[in-house]
Amino acid sequence: MDIKLIKNPKFLKEASVKECQVLGEQIREFLINSISKTGGHLASNLGVVELTIALHKAFNSPEDKIFFDVGHQCYTHKILTGRANEFNKLRQYNGLSGYQKFEESEHDVWEAGHSSTSLSAALGMAIARDLNNEKYHVVPIIGDGALGSGMALEALNNIGSEKRNMIIVFNDNNMSISNNVGAMTKGFARLRTEKRYNSLKQEMKTALNKTDVGKNVLNGLRGIRNIVKEQVVDAGIFGEFDIDYLGPVDGHNIRDLINAFEVAKNHEGPIVIHVLTKKGKGYKFCEEDSVGKWHGVGPFNIATGKPLVGNEGKLISWSQVISDALYELAKEDEDILVLTPAMIAGSKLEKFFAKYPERSFDCGIAEEHAVTLSAALALSNKKPFLSIYSSFLQRGYDQLNHDVCRMNLPVVFGIDRAGIVGEDGDTHHGVFDISFMRSLPNIIMSQPKDAKEANNLLYTAFNQKQPFSIRIPRGSTESNNDKFEKIEIGSWSIFNDKEYNKVVVLTYGPDVDKILNKILVNNLPITVVNCRFFKPLDNNMLEYISNKKLKTIIYETDILIGGLGSAILEWANDNKKDMDIVRFGIDDQFVTFGSVNQLRKDLGIDINSLFDVLLNLI
Amino acid sequence: MDIKLIKNPKFLKEASVKECQVLGEQIREFLINSISKTGGHLASNLGVVELTIALHKAFNSPEDKIFFDVGHQCYTHKILTGRANEFNKLRQYNGLSGYQKFEESEHDVWEAGHSSTSLSAALGMAIARDLNNEKYHVVPIIGDGALGSGMALEALNNIGSEKRNMIIVFNDNNMSISNNVGAMTKGFARLRTEKRYNSLKQEMKTALNKTDVGKNVLNGLRGIRNIVKEQVVDAGIFGEFDIDYLGPVDGHNIRDLINAFEVAKNHEGPIVIHVLTKKGKGYKFCEEDSVGKWHGVGPFNIATGKPLVGNEGKLISWSQVISDALYELAKEDEDILVLTPAMIAGSKLEKFFAKYPERSFDCGIAEEHAVTLSAALALSNKKPFLSIYSSFLQRGYDQLNHDVCRMNLPVVFGIDRAGIVGEDGDTHHGVFDISFMRSLPNIIMSQPKDAKEANNLLYTAFNQKQPFSIRIPRGSTESNNDKFEKIEIGSWSIFNDKEYNKVVVLTYGPDVDKILNKILVNNLPITVVNCRFFKPLDNNMLEYISNKKLKTIIYETDILIGGLGSAILEWANDNKKDMDIVRFGIDDQFVTFGSVNQLRKDLGIDINSLFDVLLNLI
Repeated sequence: MDIKLIKNPKFLKEASVKECQVLGEQIREFLINSISKTGGHLASNLGVVELTIALHKAFNSPEDKIFFDVGHQCYTHKILTGRANEFNKLRQYNGLSGYQKFEESEHDVWEAGHSSTSLSAALGMAIARDLNNEKYHVVPIIGDGALGSGMALEALNNIGSEKRNMIIVFNDNNMSISNNVGAMTKGFARLRTEKRYNSLKQEMKTALNKTDVGKNVLNGLRGIRNIVKEQVVDAGIFGEFDIDYLGPVDGHNIRDLINAFEVAKNHEGPIVIHVLTKKGKGYKFCEEDSVGKWHGVGPFNIATGKPLVGNEGKLISWSQVISDALYELAKEDEDILVLTPAMIAGSKLEKFFAKYPERSFDCGIAEEHAVTLSAALALSNKKPFLSIYSSFLQRGYDQLNHDVCRMNLPVVFGIDRAGIVGEDGDTHHGVFDISFMRSLPNIIMSQPKDAKEANNLLYTAFNQKQPFSIRIPRGSTESNNDKFEKIEIGSWSIFNDKEYNKVVVLTYGPDVDKILNKILVNNLPITVVNCRFFKPLDNNMLEYISNKKLKTIIYETDILIGGLGSAILEWANDNKKDMDIVRFGIDDQFVTFGSVNQLRKDLGIDINSLFDVLLNLI
Repeated sequence: MDIKLIKNPKFLKEASVKECQVLGEQIREFLINSISKTGGHLASNLGVVELTIALHKAFNSPEDKIFFDVGHQCYTHKILTGRANEFNKLRQYNGLSGYQKFEESEHDVWEAGHSSTSLSAALGMAIARDLNNEKYHVVPIIGDGALGSGMALEALNNIGSEKRNMIIVFNDNNMSISNNVGAMTKGFARLRTEKRYNSLKQEMKTALNKTDVGKNVLNGLRGIRNIVKEQVVDAGIFGEFDIDYLGPVDGHNIRDLINAFEVAKNHEGPIVIHVLTKKGKGYKFCEEDSVGKWHGVGPFNIATGKPLVGNEGKLISWSQVISDALYELAKEDEDILVLTPAMIAGSKLEKFFAKYPERSFDCGIAEEHAVTLSAALALSNKKPFLSIYSSFLQRGYDQLNHDVCRMNLPVVFGIDRAGIVGEDGDTHHGVFDISFMRSLPNIIMSQPKDAKEANNLLYTAFNQKQPFSIRIPRGSTESNNDKFEKIEIGSWSIFNDKEYNKVVVLTYGPDVDKILNKILVNNLPITVVNCRFFKPLDNNMLEYISNKKLKTIIYETDILIGGLGSAILEWANDNKKDMDIVRFGIDDQFVTFGSVNQLRKDLGIDINSLFDVLLNLI
C-alpha cells in the first residue's frame, strides 16, 4: 500500500497479520529513506515498527491512550495516524515535530522530550478515567533505559499501589541511547531469557480463539485471566512494585504482540508487557551501533552509512572542545573524573572513557543521582566534571542547590547544548539554566567565546574550590591547542573600545566574535564586551561602562527573565548607576523547533536584528 | 553514665553490650526530656537509639563514614560524638543544628535536609576511597520512606553495577513521616517477615566467636562470607538492583545489630542490612502516631503529650487556611483533587483526605512524579491541587518546566513553607521558588496577604486554564469565611495612597498588613502596595507608581537575585521608566537556622530595618 495515503489507523482492523508484517517492512524502508534525507531519530524508530502497528491494531486510538516515553520513537505512530506526507519536513521549521505534539494530531495524547515521564502521565490519565467512570485503555510505551530514571521508578511505586488498569509496554532493546548501564539491566536480562510468554503461547492462542469465534466468550476471557494470573507472580523488579507482568514477547512478531495485548486488555490492574525489540532493526549500521551514533543522525548515504554533510573544515564541535581539554588536563591531574548521565556519544566523551575507564562514570538517565554523586566526589577531594545537557540539568536542580551549592562543593558542570538547540525544539532548548542558576549562592557561572577560552575556563574551574559551570552550545568552533591559563574569576574582556564610541554590546559565547567581526569589518564605532562570567559579574567593567554613559545593548540568546540582563539591571540599581540598557533575548515563551538561525530570526534575536538596532544608534 | 560527659564514641569499644543497652535507655530518656523543652524531631530519633549506638560500637567514626539520610534522626549520633551539652539550644539560633553539619563535628561527614541523597553520597565516597586505595567503611543509614524517592532508586541502580564496598543500613520503621505509601512497602513487609537473619544468628555467632578469640580468624571470616553468600540471593528489591542483603535484624537489640555489622564489614561489594525499628520507641504518644504528628514537634508536656505552646487565639496556620478552602471548594466541584508528596500532616490535609479519599493522593516522597502526575490529571480535565513545600518543589523543577508549564496545564501549586521557615535551616527555607519559577512561561505566580486573599486566589486558580502557584508561609493568620471571589490576574492592591506621599513600599504576603498597620498607627505618609502576583506584574500599578516618581522600596523576604525586585527592574528598563528603587531581600547566601524573627534581623530584612530606612525618607 501507499503509506502516504494512510489517514488514520482504522484500516489496521481489517488488515491481516501478514499484511501488517508487510506494512512494517514498507514503513521501515520509508523511514530509512526519509531520515537519510532529513536526519532524525533513526535507530529507536526502526526498533518499534511492528510494535507500533500491533498497538494500533489491538487498541483504538485516540479513545485508547497510546503514547511513547520521550517520544522520539513515535515515527511509525505518526505514519499510521496520517502524517507520512510530512516526513520531508521532519524536525524542520513549521514542519513535522520529531516528538508527539497535541497540535499535530488527536492521536498524540501526551507530549514529552525528556525521558521517563510517561508512567506518571499514564497514572494521571487512569485516575481521571476511573473518577469519570469511563472505559478506555491507557498504554504508555517505555524503554529500558528510561525505566532506570528516578521519576519512572517513583511512578511504578505509585502505580503498584493505586492498582488502576493500565498496560505498560516495556520496550526492551537493552540500550538507552548508548549501551545500557545500571544494575537493573541484569534483572531485565534474566526476564528476557525466562521465556515465560513463549511457553504460554499455545494455551493463550486456544483461549483467544475461543473468544474470537464468539462462543464461550466469557469462558475464554476467564481462561486468559487465569493463565495470566498464574504466570505473573514475582516477575523481576515489576513484582517488587506489585505490578503484574507478561512476557517476554518478540517485538517484531505482530501476531505475538497482538495476542499479548488482547490478554492485557482483559487484565485487572496494571500490567507490564515485556517486549523485546532490536534497536535499529533492518538497517545494519544501526543494528551494529553500541555507542548511540545512530540515535539521532543528520542526512546520510544509505549504502555507506556515511553522513552527507561533511565536517566543517577545521571546525570541531563544542562538546569535542571540552572533551579534548578534559583529556589533556586529566593526564596531569589524576583527581579529574568525568561523569555523564547517558550522554557519552552526545558529549563526545568516548575517547576519555576509553583512555580513563576507572575515572569515567556513565550514570544512565539519572540526573538527580549524577549531581549528588558528583557532590560527594568533590567532598572527597576528587575533581568531578559532570557533563550534562542544559535542559537535562533541570532534573538535577534541587541537587545542584541543596547538595552542590549549599555545601559549596567544587563540582565542575559542563553544561552541554546550552542555548537554542534547533531541531529538537521546546523540550530540549537549553535556555533556562542562566535564570535558574543565577539565584544559587556560591556557584561561578561562565560561558566561553571560543575554544581557547573554553580550555582556560575548564582549567580555571578545576583550580577553584567552589561549584563552577561552563556552558557550551551546540555547533562547532575552531580548536585550540594553546597552553592552559587561568582566567580571573568574574573578569570580562573588552574589544574595539574606542574613545569616541557611544555604544557597547554586552554578550557571551560564540556570538562575541561574530558581532565583533562584523563591527571590525564595517569599522563601526561600537565596543564589544565578552561577558564570559554570568556570576560573578565584572564590577570594574560595569563601573567603566556606566561611568562612560555608553548606550548599552545586552544581547542574550537565552530566556530574558532572570538572565544576564536582569543581573546587570540588579547591579545598576543596587550600585545607583544610571544605565541606558536595551535587552535582546528570548521573551517569555517556549521556543519551537527549526534551525537555530531560523528560530533566532523568528525571535528577533538574530545578529541582523541586533545590527538593525545598532546601526540606528551610531 | 553522664551522657553529657561523652566526648566521642571511642568509649563504646570498651563497653559491654549490656552497658550499651542501658546507655540506650538513658539516651532515650534524655531525648524525651530535652525535646519536650526545645521541640525538635522526636519519633524518628527515638527509633534509632540502639542502632546508632551499635553503629558507633561496630565502626570507627570518623575514619569510617557513618551518616544519616536527611539527618533529622541523628540526635543519638550527636550525643555519642560529644554534643549532648548543646541540646538545650537544639535548632535555635547559634545553637545545635537539627541536622548533620560539617562545622559541628568531624563525625558529620555529609549534610542534608532533603530526603534520599545518602546513597548517591555513599557511592561518591566509596569511589573516591577506592581510587585513593584507602580502606574504610561507608555506612549510609536510610529509611523506608526515603527509599521510595527516585534519586535513591537511581543510586541503588548505580551502586548495584559499580559494586563498591558499602554497607547500606536500611532503617525500616514502616513509616515515612506519616504512614508509608507505595507498592514497595509490600515487598518490605515480605522481607520483614521472612526472618532470614534470625535463622542465621546461631551460625554467625559461632563464626564470629571463632574470629573473636583470634584463632582461625581467616577461617572464621571465610565462614561468615559463605554464610552470607548463601543467604543473600534475590532479596526483594535490593536483589533487583544486584545488591546483597542481610536481615531483618531487630533494630533495638544491640547484640544482633553488632553481629550483623561485623558480617557486613567482611562482605565484598555493597550490602544492605535490613534493620527493623519502631518509630517513637519508648514514648507511647510517639509510638501510637500514624499520621506524623510526632515527626517534628514543639515543646510538650511529657505526661500528657500536649503541646506547651497553646494555639494563638483565633489564629490558624496558613496551611490550614488553604486546606479549609480546598475542603469548601471541593464540595461544589468534584473535579478538584489534592496531591501531596508525603506531607498530609505538615500541610494539614487530614480532613480533606478523610472526607474525599478517592480524590486525595499521597504520592510518598516522590516530588518529580507528583508534579507530572498532576500535569496528566490537568490534561485529563481534572483540577489537581499539588500541595508541596517550596524547598521540595525544587525536586520537581524539570517537571514543572517541561510537563506543566510547557504544556500550559492548569495545575494549582500550593507552595507551602514559602519563605524563611526558621529552625530547619538552610535546607528547608523556601526562598528560591520565586527566582526559579519566574522565568517559566505560562505560569501565574501569587502569594496572598491574608486568609481572605488566600481563599480568593485559590478560587481564582481553579478557574484559570493555566499553571497557577500560590505561596503560603509558615506561621499563622486569622481565618476567613467570606464568600469566594475571583481576583483579577496580575492585579495588585494599594493602601494609604495619599496625594502627598513620596514613598511607596512594594511587598507581599503577611508583611503587607504588618507594614501597613505600622504606617497607619504612626500616620506615616507612605503608600503600601500588595504585590500579590509575582507574575504577571500589575502594569497599571507600576505605571502609576513610576509616573508619580515615588521613591520605591521593594521589601522582599526571599532571595533577591531574580525575585520580585528583579522583575520590576526588568519592567522599568523595558518600559523606559526611571524608577528610584531600593531593594530589601536575602542577599546571595544560604540562610542558617533560628527563629524567623532572628534570621530576618540577621539578614537586615526585619520590619524594623525597613522602617529605619523608611523614616529617613519621609
